[in-house]
Amino acid sequence: MNSPFSFIDANTDRYLKELSDLLAIPSVSTDPERVPDIKRCAEWLADHMRGIGLQNVQIMPTQGHPVVYADWLGAPGKPTVLIYGHYDVQPPEPLELWTSPPFQATVRGDDLFARGASDDKGQTFIHLKAVEAFITTQGALPVNVKFLIEGEEEIGSEHLEGFVRDHAAMLKADLVLISDSSMFAKGVPSICYGLRGLAYMQIDLVGPNRDLHSGSYGGSVLNPIQALSEIISRLHDKNGRVTIPGFYDDVRKLSAKERTAFKKLPWSDAKYARDLGLRRLYGEKGFTTLERLWARPTAECNGIWGGFTDEGAKTVLPSRVSAKISMRLVPDQSSSKAARLFERYVKAIAPKGVQVTVRSLHGGEPVITPIESSGVRAAIVALERGFGKKPLYQREGGSIPIVVQFKKLLKIDTVLLGFGLPDENAHAPDEFLHLPNFYGGIRTVAHFFEVLPETARP
Amino acid sequence: MNSPFSFIDANTDRYLKELSDLLAIPSVSTDPERVPDIKRCAEWLADHMRGIGLQNVQIMPTQGHPVVYADWLGAPGKPTVLIYGHYDVQPPEPLELWTSPPFQATVRGDDLFARGASDDKGQTFIHLKAVEAFITTQGALPVNVKFLIEGEEEIGSEHLEGFVRDHAAMLKADLVLISDSSMFAKGVPSICYGLRGLAYMQIDLVGPNRDLHSGSYGGSVLNPIQALSEIISRLHDKNGRVTIPGFYDDVRKLSAKERTAFKKLPWSDAKYARDLGLRRLYGEKGFTTLERLWARPTAECNGIWGGFTDEGAKTVLPSRVSAKISMRLVPDQSSSKAARLFERYVKAIAPKGVQVTVRSLHGGEPVITPIESSGVRAAIVALERGFGKKPLYQREGGSIPIVVQFKKLLKIDTVLLGFGLPDENAHAPDEFLHLPNFYGGIRTVAHFFEVLPETARP
Repeated sequence: MNSPFSFIDANTDRYLKELSDLLAIPSVSTDPERVPDIKRCAEWLADHMRGIGLQNVQIMPTQGHPVVYADWLGAPGKPTVLIYGHYDVQPPEPLELWTSPPFQATVRGDDLFARGASDDKGQTFIHLKAVEAFITTQGALPVNVKFLIEGEEEIGSEHLEGFVRDHAAMLKADLVLISDSSMFAKGVPSICYGLRGLAYMQIDLVGPNRDLHSGSYGGSVLNPIQALSEIISRLHDKNGRVTIPGFYDDVRKLSAKERTAFKKLPWSDAKYARDLGLRRLYGEKGFTTLERLWARPTAECNGIWGGFTDEGAKTVLPSRVSAKISMRLVPDQSSSKAARLFERYVKAIAPKGVQVTVRSLHGGEPVITPIESSGVRAAIVALERGFGKKPLYQREGGSIPIVVQFKKLLKIDTVLLGFGLPDENAHAPDEFLHLPNFYGGIRTVAHFFEVLPETARP
Repeated sequence: MNSPFSFIDANTDRYLKELSDLLAIPSVSTDPERVPDIKRCAEWLADHMRGIGLQNVQIMPTQGHPVVYADWLGAPGKPTVLIYGHYDVQPPEPLELWTSPPFQATVRGDDLFARGASDDKGQTFIHLKAVEAFITTQGALPVNVKFLIEGEEEIGSEHLEGFVRDHAAMLKADLVLISDSSMFAKGVPSICYGLRGLAYMQIDLVGPNRDLHSGSYGGSVLNPIQALSEIISRLHDKNGRVTIPGFYDDVRKLSAKERTAFKKLPWSDAKYARDLGLRRLYGEKGFTTLERLWARPTAECNGIWGGFTDEGAKTVLPSRVSAKISMRLVPDQSSSKAARLFERYVKAIAPKGVQVTVRSLHGGEPVITPIESSGVRAAIVALERGFGKKPLYQREGGSIPIVVQFKKLLKIDTVLLGFGLPDENAHAPDEFLHLPNFYGGIRTVAHFFEVLPETARP
């Protein structure tokens, strides 16, 4: 009986051909004309899943595009891994900026170019090939697996939460495994174990009951833009710390181990600033850039508007002004508490003479999968074996809503094994997948299946 | 020989009828379909001017709508008054909000309702009737007069400056007389002797070289909206004073006489705040509301925009943000110096980490016609005689660009004799002219002609 790893090494050319077939289907979820392609793509996947020995393969309707489900549950007593991915892709436009046609996968150098190559058909396919390698060579997997591949990720996963809630029993698992993100850098395999949450607020501020002529009235009433500017300028102190009382109360401190781990990542503040066209960076005193991005909460203005904003010089003293301000949150902050603290503070510091309304537009919780958890430990071993290199620990500054949903609805943590690269043009022309990451990813996931029962042992 | 004043009193019914004919012409300057009406209105005025004994009556073309000119220069050695007015009107829409048709002058109570009744056909007509009263009863005026009645005031007087420059010799005069504004309140005749100037600026602020994801980047770079808010919040101190160094250096102090005069005006801060829907007013410490509005300079935000401003919650950390900020200026400030001081200060206080550009969009000088000048003294006597009531002194918070242009191009001061009312719906449905002000205005202007040679005597 062959080893699954020799099988993988022997089949890379076929993998590339199969993935190219999958990438040829223009499953653009936002385009109503592509509904037949979405359907065709789901069917392609379902057929492929059946072909590699997965069971209970189903194309399950939603209010939008269908979910493709499959499982293999032949390892009783072993951990069950829920693998999430998506088969829909971003629109390819502008077409003229593609070097080769977006739905005709093309290898140049070590990269495979096509829409969806990295986000997320290529990374989803990695899991299928790891499963295939085991079933073909061993007749079995070391763990149980369930696949949940959706078709609406690029349009906001509108129906996913309902689907997960409705099928919670079917999706029951010990952890979620997702490959829909990037490793830290080319040649730097990494495991992402934390995401920030979000509390997205809007402030609406009203001064006089109508727009006034700034000549006839200017100097006698408080200008709402001035009032809002004062509020915004008081959200941070001179050390870059958010001034909202109680804001940091629930922030989990970075452990010494995490800080040391972040310092091992290849990083240059100078290069980062240069890439952004900035002469200097900014942030909370006492923390490195990566710590600020991943492990510290923020209050960030996303937009502001009020008064006259066209060309020219209209002399208006505006009645109202608004701003969108969002807080990125880290464990163990909660979005509802952050929203409450924000509203209380803004109302407390709002200058007299204006009416201020604070609304919460959106909230999402921060998540962390502790680096001591069995899933993260298995991923670390698997990455080292898959890429022949000790992986590094990282977090992400953004949020991945489905991770929060899985935590909320299924009560399980997610392991994020990203095999993309930070500059792989995920939503842009010339999207690509770095082929060493494709093959290394298949090996890594196979190792993950193998290692997980060990690390999961109590 | 009759007195011009008995003549005026005997002819009010005819005045009302004639004015109604003038108001029946829909001379809407902004509406291309009304060009024939504009022409007809200019011809009506020219005919009327000839009829009352004015000379050199001409309809003079401009690049836009024509100017109507006329003069009477039969008083050598006496002052020459240049009377400015406009025969174009605002559009009447929304028509359904008019109680009576906008171009069918209708008397209700003491008011004459029609588009242009107050702004400015009615007020311009006052001057013609005062001239007529003298020429008819005396065969002569006590002063020389020149009429400059334009047809583009409601669309920005685009061609007026060029016209005045091109005809400076023809328009030579000792002072300008304009009735295109309001008295302080019903039953409170007043003379406006000062206007504020303007320096209108734009700040453009750039942080990172592109819009960033506020999750992936938030906390590591200075947010441009936060930076701009800090700048704006530092334009005023806690006493409501503008903090720009040198800003107040050239501000002419209010004289004790002016402050006393302003205090005589009927004014209620509580009523003013209530009308604006405000619980409290705001402004520079140590000054009353009217002083703040008329005799103190300001820095006022007119507009601000940046980042995501639509519905919903887009997590962007914007690359750029802009604000329009204008300063109202008082004598003896200059708009170019104010612009320079503003730019220097904003650049000095701009946080490091953003690029700031400051542009001057528009400037206009403050003007004052000293209350000791012969024109203002004549107006005070004339108003008292015309309305049987001691008039009060006032200024205006806004600017009237043509006053600045006359000062700049013809080197003469303007006397603003407003016979409108503050709530006469000048640009709204149901515009009206208060008829006691119409008749009182004609008497006042006749007295002005009579008194001016006295006050003008060196």
